[in-house]
Amino acid sequence: MKLREIAARIGGELHGDGSIEITGVAGIREAEEGEITFFANTRYEGYLCSTRASAIILAENGKSDYEGKTLLVNSNPYLAFLKTIEIFRKRDYDEPRGVHETAIIGNRVKMGTCITVGAHVIIEDGCTIGRGTRILPGSYLGFRSRVGEDCLVYPNVTIREDTVLGDRVIVHAGTVIGSDGFGFTKSGEQVGERNSKIHQIGYVLIEDDVEIGSNVTIDRATVGITHIKKGTKIDNLVQIAHNVVIGEDSLIVAQVGISGSTEVGRNVTLAGQVGIVGHIKVGDNVEVGAQSGVTKSVPADTRVSGYPAREHRMAKRILSAMKRLPEIVRKVSRIEKRLEMLEQHHEQEG
Amino acid sequence: MKLREIAARIGGELHGDGSIEITGVAGIREAEEGEITFFANTRYEGYLCSTRASAIILAENGKSDYEGKTLLVNSNPYLAFLKTIEIFRKRDYDEPRGVHETAIIGNRVKMGTCITVGAHVIIEDGCTIGRGTRILPGSYLGFRSRVGEDCLVYPNVTIREDTVLGDRVIVHAGTVIGSDGFGFTKSGEQVGERNSKIHQIGYVLIEDDVEIGSNVTIDRATVGITHIKKGTKIDNLVQIAHNVVIGEDSLIVAQVGISGSTEVGRNVTLAGQVGIVGHIKVGDNVEVGAQSGVTKSVPADTRVSGYPAREHRMAKRILSAMKRLPEIVRKVSRIEKRLEMLEQHHEQEG
Amino acid sequence: MKLREIAARIGGELHGDGSIEITGVAGIREAEEGEITFFANTRYEGYLCSTRASAIILAENGKSDYEGKTLLVNSNPYLAFLKTIEIFRKRDYDEPRGVHETAIIGNRVKMGTCITVGAHVIIEDGCTIGRGTRILPGSYLGFRSRVGEDCLVYPNVTIREDTVLGDRVIVHAGTVIGSDGFGFTKSGEQVGERNSKIHQIGYVLIEDDVEIGSNVTIDRATVGITHIKKGTKIDNLVQIAHNVVIGEDSLIVAQVGISGSTEVGRNVTLAGQVGIVGHIKVGDNVEVGAQSGVTKSVPADTRVSGYPAREHRMAKRILSAMKRLPEIVRKVSRIEKRLEMLEQHHEQEG
Repeated sequence: MKLREIAARIGGELHGDGSIEITGVAGIREAEEGEITFFANTRYEGYLCSTRASAIILAENGKSDYEGKTLLVNSNPYLAFLKTIEIFRKRDYDEPRGVHETAIIGNRVKMGTCITVGAHVIIEDGCTIGRGTRILPGSYLGFRSRVGEDCLVYPNVTIREDTVLGDRVIVHAGTVIGSDGFGFTKSGEQVGERNSKIHQIGYVLIEDDVEIGSNVTIDRATVGITHIKKGTKIDNLVQIAHNVVIGEDSLIVAQVGISGSTEVGRNVTLAGQVGIVGHIKVGDNVEVGAQSGVTKSVPADTRVSGYPAREHRMAKRILSAMKRLPEIVRKVSRIEKRLEMLEQHHEQEG
Repeated sequence: MKLREIAARIGGELHGDGSIEITGVAGIREAEEGEITFFANTRYEGYLCSTRASAIILAENGKSDYEGKTLLVNSNPYLAFLKTIEIFRKRDYDEPRGVHETAIIGNRVKMGTCITVGAHVIIEDGCTIGRGTRILPGSYLGFRSRVGEDCLVYPNVTIREDTVLGDRVIVHAGTVIGSDGFGFTKSGEQVGERNSKIHQIGYVLIEDDVEIGSNVTIDRATVGITHIKKGTKIDNLVQIAHNVVIGEDSLIVAQVGISGSTEVGRNVTLAGQVGIVGHIKVGDNVEVGAQSGVTKSVPADTRVSGYPAREHRMAKRILSAMKRLPEIVRKVSRIEKRLEMLEQHHEQEG
Repeated sequence: MKLREIAARIGGELHGDGSIEITGVAGIREAEEGEITFFANTRYEGYLCSTRASAIILAENGKSDYEGKTLLVNSNPYLAFLKTIEIFRKRDYDEPRGVHETAIIGNRVKMGTCITVGAHVIIEDGCTIGRGTRILPGSYLGFRSRVGEDCLVYPNVTIREDTVLGDRVIVHAGTVIGSDGFGFTKSGEQVGERNSKIHQIGYVLIEDDVEIGSNVTIDRATVGITHIKKGTKIDNLVQIAHNVVIGEDSLIVAQVGISGSTEVGRNVTLAGQVGIVGHIKVGDNVEVGAQSGVTKSVPADTRVSGYPAREHRMAKRILSAMKRLPEIVRKVSRIEKRLEMLEQHHEQEG
């Protein structure tokens, strides 16, 4: 594609030869000849001259020339770059491919138009698959599950019975939705200390525009609903236990674990490896720092971190004081000795 | 099903109309008309009047009436509720379905009666599958593996060669049992610092009544056995390394990691995201708090938490003192100044 | 196999009957009659007499006899034992089995000789599979992916489009390579706070001799490459985000998470459950202790631990001081009182 065409699609003013052929996009360090890159962070200024990219998207043309490179001046180079990515991304899956001959489709399955059901996919009885949805090879859709329109389910995903997915939901490979919650009871009629299983008869509801990473696990509710609301994005290897509710537009980063029945608000960010105990509420717009352990409810609009999670500034103050702890221990010993001497002296005087 | 029939099956005294039709079970907050719920925790007392449920299981009928709701009085409402769940749960898998025509069955495979082998399942040579066991679609059973009776293996599970599962074992979707332990050596004959693989020729033994969550990984032993004993329950995304032994009836919560050759006792609870180093022993009846890092052996019948894991009361005392640490740092500075003034004064006097 | 033949293959001096038949290898505690074991760690000295093994590999024959057991004296018994493991390990997969009739092979796929493509494997259009490589049942290879020679891909693995694997790469079951990085932007043209997806058009490059555990997730780059270099070994349930680079011969233990664009050097060890923030550098030969949270770049040749990760000796000193923290809090209170008394007294005197 000619640079001129890209400029027309993403917007911006061309400085240089618009007729050059652009073969791809890349970061400023890795770009090769023929590729287009962008410059937005002054930390990478040194690469402006050394990059092998043939064209650079940037906010202003400070110098008129970077060694003959063609420049595309755009007030928001990062956003312009994202649009360029869109132009160049390959879309192997976008064409509806119909139902592969090796897919197994149960009874009473309703399928919309323009769908893809890949090789070796299993769709159990009573499922519904909305218009434009793609279920990629090796995935499993349990009894009576419903997947909305324009969803994308990557390979080797397991969606257990009665799960409901809204529209435009993306589920990455290897993820399991609707597995049994971890519920056992010792108060049963069984003798001794055996754990007997509490059957999990609820389901999972994933609303529109949710994206779920790879090898995530989302348990069905014991009774009722494990509920992920609109627009929330979940990273890889996250654990969401039975009866958890997550509000709209939240970001759950990799390896987070949320225990049973906890409610997470809207627009919340849980950074990587955070753990949250069960039966609490994390308010709207809360940010939880990486690896924190949240042990009690967190009010809305706050930022917490640490173990146990505390208001972020307090947590930082504690961490900073901890650095001085060995010194404090020594000081306290010395103080005690000095104090003792003063006291002895005082006694002798007295 | 009529409420009267439910009462007959779970036990309890009916107050109200036993002829009403019950369509399902639900929590007291989410229940809809036609459903039955339960009340056991006083925290939810406010919902007794507002719930839309048509019937409530509760321990005693304090007030004679909750807005005309039908009550089922039972001394253990939670247990009665669990029994009600049993009545209403759907059992898609309970009927043996035989071997699906797309399943691939190797040579010398022994299969009991009343089994289910789902679509696209692969059973390698020399496997044994016990009576009543169900292997759901897309799962893989490696060479010479043995699965006992009445087991349930969910979709897309990988059970590697020579693995042994007892009776009534449940393995949730996406789980991998018998992958190679993480063993490498730099003391080989190879030049330099290359890590050369230590081949892992042991196997995994899972005893009766064990339940294993989704996307769990359990490594085979280097030599010998990685061993999960009777009745132990393992939650999602847990990592169990080579040669680990876990005793009977333990509970291993989500995202726990247990390093190589560590022995965990019976009736142990490891809360979420706990990490345990290799080659140690965690005694019987131990409880480890969430996110703890266990760095040395833990005696039986104790409760530990924190990083590194310590006796729980001590760990709590330290956490509580940590809250005061910034204040302590300031106080020690002030103390030093006051002490200096006293000392100077004392010298002048002296 | 006769013990004499084993001795000939692994080296060492036989003390006893070389004609006995050896049926397998095992640890000194678990070994049964007919098996060979080894003794290298004095911790296990007590087992030398009680082991049921028929032969023992050891470094020197201190006593002439262990209850009639046959001994194989070798200066490096552990290494000799590893070689014995090699002799006895079963190799179900080593014979090339060709392409299973249920595998789905796309267009323009290039396949080398002596390969195995298992049942229900899907190979999309444009893939390349090198000589001697085995792709086991249920795995998925996305469009244009390239797998080198003598690789081993275990069951139910998902390798997304455009991924490149070098030679002798091992990928364990359930792992996902090339899933989308976790990238969203609120700075788009969309109204409100919706997170809009940043399309991930980079890819994953795994170099020669890398081994990747079970249920691992490795995200493709936003643009450019997520890059795992030669000889690095990755354990189970590890998360590697978009654009991460890991140098040669590093060891990444189970449940580690590495955030986007971070560069990890060569010969680095990240112990279990470590988390590393994005956009930093971890230098060559660094060791990071289990469960540490690495929040800033780490210089080469250092050892760090704790949260936040600090130089290891400093981190240990802080942990050790923390144990004394409750005592310090009490002491400071007492000190303040004593000081006050002295001050009052002093004032009265003054």
